[in-house]
Amino acid sequence: MKSLVLTELKTPLQLEERPDLEPGDGEVVVQLKAAALNRRDYWITQGLYPGIEPPVTLGSDGAGVISKIGSGVEGISNGDEVLINPGWNWGEDESAQASRFQILGVPRDGTFATEVLVPADAVHARPRHLNWHEAAALPLAGVTAFRAVFSQGQLQAGENVLVTGIGGGVATFALQFAKAAGATVFVTSSSATKIERACELGATAGFDYTDDGWAKRLQKEHGPMNLIIDSAGGDGYAGLIDVAAPGGRIVNYGATAGPPKKFDLMKVFWKQLRVLGSTMGSPRDFAAMLEFVQSKQLRPVLDKSFPLEQGNEALARMRDCEQFGKIVLEI
Amino acid sequence: MKSLVLTELKTPLQLEERPDLEPGDGEVVVQLKAAALNRRDYWITQGLYPGIEPPVTLGSDGAGVISKIGSGVEGISNGDEVLINPGWNWGEDESAQASRFQILGVPRDGTFATEVLVPADAVHARPRHLNWHEAAALPLAGVTAFRAVFSQGQLQAGENVLVTGIGGGVATFALQFAKAAGATVFVTSSSATKIERACELGATAGFDYTDDGWAKRLQKEHGPMNLIIDSAGGDGYAGLIDVAAPGGRIVNYGATAGPPKKFDLMKVFWKQLRVLGSTMGSPRDFAAMLEFVQSKQLRPVLDKSFPLEQGNEALARMRDCEQFGKIVLEI
Repeated sequence: MKSLVLTELKTPLQLEERPDLEPGDGEVVVQLKAAALNRRDYWITQGLYPGIEPPVTLGSDGAGVISKIGSGVEGISNGDEVLINPGWNWGEDESAQASRFQILGVPRDGTFATEVLVPADAVHARPRHLNWHEAAALPLAGVTAFRAVFSQGQLQAGENVLVTGIGGGVATFALQFAKAAGATVFVTSSSATKIERACELGATAGFDYTDDGWAKRLQKEHGPMNLIIDSAGGDGYAGLIDVAAPGGRIVNYGATAGPPKKFDLMKVFWKQLRVLGSTMGSPRDFAAMLEFVQSKQLRPVLDKSFPLEQGNEALARMRDCEQFGKIVLEI
Repeated sequence: MKSLVLTELKTPLQLEERPDLEPGDGEVVVQLKAAALNRRDYWITQGLYPGIEPPVTLGSDGAGVISKIGSGVEGISNGDEVLINPGWNWGEDESAQASRFQILGVPRDGTFATEVLVPADAVHARPRHLNWHEAAALPLAGVTAFRAVFSQGQLQAGENVLVTGIGGGVATFALQFAKAAGATVFVTSSSATKIERACELGATAGFDYTDDGWAKRLQKEHGPMNLIIDSAGGDGYAGLIDVAAPGGRIVNYGATAGPPKKFDLMKVFWKQLRVLGSTMGSPRDFAAMLEFVQSKQLRPVLDKSFPLEQGNEALARMRDCEQFGKIVLEI
C-alpha cells in the first residue's frame, strides 16, 4: 500500500510504500477511492493538536471499497462501497463524547493512503447519489455541521440562520443543511467571491465581517437571527450576540480567532441566549446526517481535487483558506 | 393608602400618603400583608435600571388579600388570599420574554405599599403551607430560580449542581429546588457562615470562591458539575467552565461581577458545554414553580423582616449583601 505520512512536524508529508493492512477481529480494510481534507489535518502538520506521534498517516475522511474483512464481522461483504465515520468510541452520552473518543488519522493511521483499517461499525453504505469524491467529502464536516445545526442548534423550518466564515467544509454543509431544512440562511466572509458562491447555494445574503457594522446592517435588513453557526469566536463575537434574536442559539464548533474579546453575559442572560458548544458528532448524529443527505439528495460542495501524490499542495490550499467546500484527494 | 416612594434617585425612599387605588377593567387591588426585596430594588434606587421615572413605588414581590375587583374579572373574590406574579406581558414565546415584558415596581407602582393594583391574571392563590412572609418572598426569586434550574438548566435527579454566591434569594431557591429534585448540590460563597447555612439546607459542601483552586478542589473531591447556576460572571467564570462536566450546562441569570474575564470558547466547544442565559420566567414557569413548591412543601428561606416604614434599612441590608434568603417587609 501507499501512504502519505507525516514523518516530522512542520515538514512536508512523504509518500511511503508500506506493508498491506490486515484486519483484526471486528475490523475491515477499505481500499480507498478518495479522501478529503479537514482543517484538522493542517493543524496536525503544525503540531497544533494533542496526541501526535509521527510517523502517522493523516486523513479522517475517506470512501472506498471493502477489500478485507476480519473475523466476527457480519453484514459486510468484500466489494461493498462505503464511506467511513471517522469518530470512534463516542460513548453512551449523546450530550458529549467520552474521553476515549478518537478521530481517524491521529493517533490511528488515516485515509491519505491507498487503504485504511477501521472498525466494522465505522463503515456505512455509500449514498447512491454521491460519486466517490462527494462521498469522501461528507463524513467529518458533514457530521459536525449536522450536530451543530440540528442536534445542538435545534433548527426549525422558517428560522433565520447565520453561518459565519462561509467556504470552510463545515460552514458550507451548515448552509446546505439549514437551507434544505427550510431556513433562511445568511453568511459572512471576507471574500466577495465566497459570498457569491454561497448565494448560488441558497444563501439569501452575505456580509463582509471585516466591515464595521455588518451585524447591524444584517439585523436591519433581515431581522435578528434565531440560530448562528460560528467557528471563529474572537473580536467578531460581540456582533453575533447583538444579532441573535431573544431566545436565539449560537453554536460554536471552533474558535479559530481565539476566545471572544468580550463575552457580554448581561446581554446573554437578558436575551435568554443559548451558547452551545459542539464538536463532531455521535454515531446517532452520523446516521441521522446520512439519512438527511439521502432524503434531501444533497451533494457536498467540492472545491478542488488533487492526486494523493500532491497531498502537500492540497494542504497548502487548506492552510491559505482559499477553498470553498471540500478539498479532495483522488486515490 | 401608604406607599414607600422613590422620589429621587440615590435618596432614601419616602413614606407617602396616597389616594386609595381603584381597579380598571380586568384589574384587582391587593391589600398587601407582606412584600419582599430583590436586588433589582436596590439597583433602581441607584438608577442602574432602564425606565425609572420617579416618583415610583418600588417592590416586585408581594402577598395579600383581594380588596377590590375591576369589571370583567372572573373567578376571583374579595378576601381571596393571593401572591402576585410580578412578570407581565411575557408574550407567546417560552424561550424569551417579549420586548413589552415588564416587572411590577418600575415602571408600574409596586408592592412596598399597603395596596397594589395588578392585572387579575397576575394573582395566584397563596400556597396553604406558606405564611404571609414566605408567600411574599417567593414570586420573583422563585420563578427566576425555577426557570434557571429546570426550564433552562433541565436538571435531572442524581446530577451534580453548583450554585454560586449562595445567600441571595435566587441562589437560595436554586439550592432548595435542586435538592428537592434529587440533585447533589454544592455552593460557593466568600462567607463561611453562608456556606454553613447552605449545608443546613441540604448542600453537600461549600467552597470559598476567593480561595485559588477552589474549582479544582471541588472537582477532585466531588467530580465535575452537570449544572452550574451562576449570577456573577467576572473573573471566576473560567473556573466554572473548568468544573463543568462534558455536556454540562452553565445557566446565568446575572453578571454582577461583569462579563467573564476570559471565555474559553475552545473548552466550551470541545466539552460541548451549554451556556444558557436566563432571566425571570414565563407565566408557565411561574405556575410550574408554584406547583413544585406545593408538591415538595418547600418554604422560602427568610432572612430578616422590617416594617414597611423601615424600608430603607431593608435596602441597606440588600446593598451590603448581608442576607441569607429573602428580606421581607411587614405591612
